Amino acid sequence: MAITSGTSTHIIMRLQLDRETHSFSEIANCISIAGGDVIGIDVISSTKTHTVRDITVNGLDLTNSKLLIDLISKLRGVKVINISDRTFLMHLGGKIETGLKSKIKNRDDLSRVYTPGVASVCTAIAEEPDKAYSLTIKRNTVAVISDGTAVLGLGNIGPAAAMPVMEGKALLFKQLANVDAFPLCLDTQDTEEIIRTIKAVAPAFGGINLEDIASPRCFEIERRLKEELDVPVFHDDQHGTAVVILAGLINALRITKKKLEDIKVVITGIGAAGMACSKMLLSAGVKNIIGVDRMGAINRNEKYDNIYWTEYANMTNPDNLSGNLSEVIEGADVFIGLSAPGILKVEDVKSMAKDPIVFAMANPLPEIDPEKAEPYVRVMATGRSDFPNQINNVLCFPGIFRGALDSRSTEINEEMKLAAAHAIASVVRDEELNEAYIIPSVFNEKVVEKVREAVIKAAHETGVARREPRE
Amino acid sequence: MAITSGTSTHIIMRLQLDRETHSFSEIANCISIAGGDVIGIDVISSTKTHTVRDITVNGLDLTNSKLLIDLISKLRGVKVINISDRTFLMHLGGKIETGLKSKIKNRDDLSRVYTPGVASVCTAIAEEPDKAYSLTIKRNTVAVISDGTAVLGLGNIGPAAAMPVMEGKALLFKQLANVDAFPLCLDTQDTEEIIRTIKAVAPAFGGINLEDIASPRCFEIERRLKEELDVPVFHDDQHGTAVVILAGLINALRITKKKLEDIKVVITGIGAAGMACSKMLLSAGVKNIIGVDRMGAINRNEKYDNIYWTEYANMTNPDNLSGNLSEVIEGADVFIGLSAPGILKVEDVKSMAKDPIVFAMANPLPEIDPEKAEPYVRVMATGRSDFPNQINNVLCFPGIFRGALDSRSTEINEEMKLAAAHAIASVVRDEELNEAYIIPSVFNEKVVEKVREAVIKAAHETGVARREPRE
Repeated sequence: MAITSGTSTHIIMRLQLDRETHSFSEIANCISIAGGDVIGIDVISSTKTHTVRDITVNGLDLTNSKLLIDLISKLRGVKVINISDRTFLMHLGGKIETGLKSKIKNRDDLSRVYTPGVASVCTAIAEEPDKAYSLTIKRNTVAVISDGTAVLGLGNIGPAAAMPVMEGKALLFKQLANVDAFPLCLDTQDTEEIIRTIKAVAPAFGGINLEDIASPRCFEIERRLKEELDVPVFHDDQHGTAVVILAGLINALRITKKKLEDIKVVITGIGAAGMACSKMLLSAGVKNIIGVDRMGAINRNEKYDNIYWTEYANMTNPDNLSGNLSEVIEGADVFIGLSAPGILKVEDVKSMAKDPIVFAMANPLPEIDPEKAEPYVRVMATGRSDFPNQINNVLCFPGIFRGALDSRSTEINEEMKLAAAHAIASVVRDEELNEAYIIPSVFNEKVVEKVREAVIKAAHETGVARREPRE
Repeated sequence: MAITSGTSTHIIMRLQLDRETHSFSEIANCISIAGGDVIGIDVISSTKTHTVRDITVNGLDLTNSKLLIDLISKLRGVKVINISDRTFLMHLGGKIETGLKSKIKNRDDLSRVYTPGVASVCTAIAEEPDKAYSLTIKRNTVAVISDGTAVLGLGNIGPAAAMPVMEGKALLFKQLANVDAFPLCLDTQDTEEIIRTIKAVAPAFGGINLEDIASPRCFEIERRLKEELDVPVFHDDQHGTAVVILAGLINALRITKKKLEDIKVVITGIGAAGMACSKMLLSAGVKNIIGVDRMGAINRNEKYDNIYWTEYANMTNPDNLSGNLSEVIEGADVFIGLSAPGILKVEDVKSMAKDPIVFAMANPLPEIDPEKAEPYVRVMATGRSDFPNQINNVLCFPGIFRGALDSRSTEINEEMKLAAAHAIASVVRDEELNEAYIIPSVFNEKVVEKVREAVIKAAHETGVARREPRE
């Protein structure tokens, strides 16, 4: 494909240079071959025989960085001590820490936040458990929980390696919506054990955000926890994605002047996200959805080992179409890809109805190269930040949990998710709306507030709210 | 007993006052009867018929506060809306929050701390798991975990009600030693389930601090977790208490000029703390320890249902004494109470050896009233802040975990605990040491640093350290 998956970055090379034998022009030459620019040279230490320097190089993607390091390490008189890039530097020691609401200043404070004073607070909660919401972190704290089995596009990399994603999520929760989140990566991949563990740690938390748990196990885990816990449980990979796709679709349809009820939608990749997205669209009023996975359109003539597909066939595909993507996409108004790079062909787009809407969400490489699709689509969205219309679930989870916590909801239900989608869409005003701007930026400060308000309203209307919001 | 257990405090009463019928002089009279002083009156809102005021009252302990509220709520034209005291106000919304190491400022930052950039960090950890220590919160983060079964002196109050203690502990970890701690209160009281849950959540953490878990289950939980996890596991109620008692005892013996090897020690209350304290003293060189519980001195002639007592009898009481406290304390150099209020009589103290050392740790009411004991003891310590020589495990846990994290130790072993005790004792210099100052204040800033250094040294000497400390 024409587009690359890497993002370019600074790297910092710490080199030990032999004063006698090294030649800086050779180093500069390597950097130039790799396509980078030197933007800084710092002397770290110096002896009679050696100098240690940090050389900061800009403009390299991952492949070129590797080439550069390879070239440099072969030079005479040069020893590579360490390579770091800004991404790694931002992760040193982790991304979050414990913040203190108030510091203890003297023995009197100590006797209140700890023994003996704290005993009266404990007793108050023991006598009236609901007071946990006012006297502990519960009212503002969400657990971000993963088993590390479906992390980004990396797959089953385990709990320790999943931590940077969960920490990143905790950071975004706090910065964007002032929700205190804590990452927990579980050292088990057994469904029952995961359920038991989450139930056991639940008392501290006012909500549970499930993350990067492989399908189909994620369905059972979410379903059971929703039944057995009295705080919201939300699998972001399913529902966050579905909410933001619906928000984008609502606005794309404002442009093409079509209605949710009338459109034909083809969705590729019927895993956790594809399933959740389909259900969300059905709730929103879409009637004609055709799900396509590796063996073609999911229909009611086939027998599936995957019980979730059997269920899926029963609620979608009204015309019971069969066949591959190219066959079923004919005449479709909307394509939503949650599958794999390059599976949507230009010819497929050409066979769609007038004003095709294409959401190609595979990451980092979309289902179709946006530049190739461009001449034939009316509205195009991807998961990437370097093309217009990035569908990013950062638009959903901070605000939806802010609303759920502030209304002290027992769950995040379908109505609250629909309300969140409409709220996200509403941030783009009529006069702003165009083919390259159907979805607000993740930095748009109105998003969290709009989503929060809509979610609180829906929570009250559906009877799952337990309190009036704090102002 | 002559001493009271309460600490006096401000309380704030929010009262709705009927303009027609209420009389402020009646309210003032109630406050006076209860023994308090009005120190502030604030109007919160006012209508034609009612005024809402916050009345701040000083100088009341818990009993008198209850009396006051009782009196006020019986007045005509007065409705008590809410009562809060400073302790409760300090707990509103909890005591800790998520702190951000660095904020994201733009899309470039976002793409590093979250997708797509974070993927390279995840991959690095997946390839080399040890990198979790440099690239995630693990290297500085401790879980503070309780099942809520033995909280302070309150007993089995459950996980939600235990949270304020665990949050307080997290606050102290951060403020005193810059350790990031997170409280987890478990909704299970089953030993195996607790072990499984802690193992499942362990990947995020560089250490586990167990807290307020009832005996004897706490022994099995700690033993198994120490075996099965490669990070330090430390039950503070046992070992923190034991370390600080030993520190105090070392300094008390500096005053009485006796040696650990020569003293006779009687310990009352052979639960988790009593057991750990006895083992710590044995490790430190004490030869003659007699443990006393409800049925008298634990000895090798009795058969105990509690297997830990059988084990205890085999490692203590060299002369195999039997009898009650009054009988076995005769000639003892040291009394350590970890039991119940008032069980040590003045006559018992009189029968001890010259220069008696009495550590009466029962909280809030000690084994003997310090004022009654005073004429007969040489050195007296309690768990209370309103008498000299407070034995407080806040002196131990921040520094011992700081040292364990900085040396990346696989465990906190006996040598590290002994080193911590000697380090705490060493903070009191010869010229400062006296009967009323055997243990440093919890606010003494040297404590954490001294404990940290000693613990790192002991960790290296015993081969459990995995890295040189950060400076």
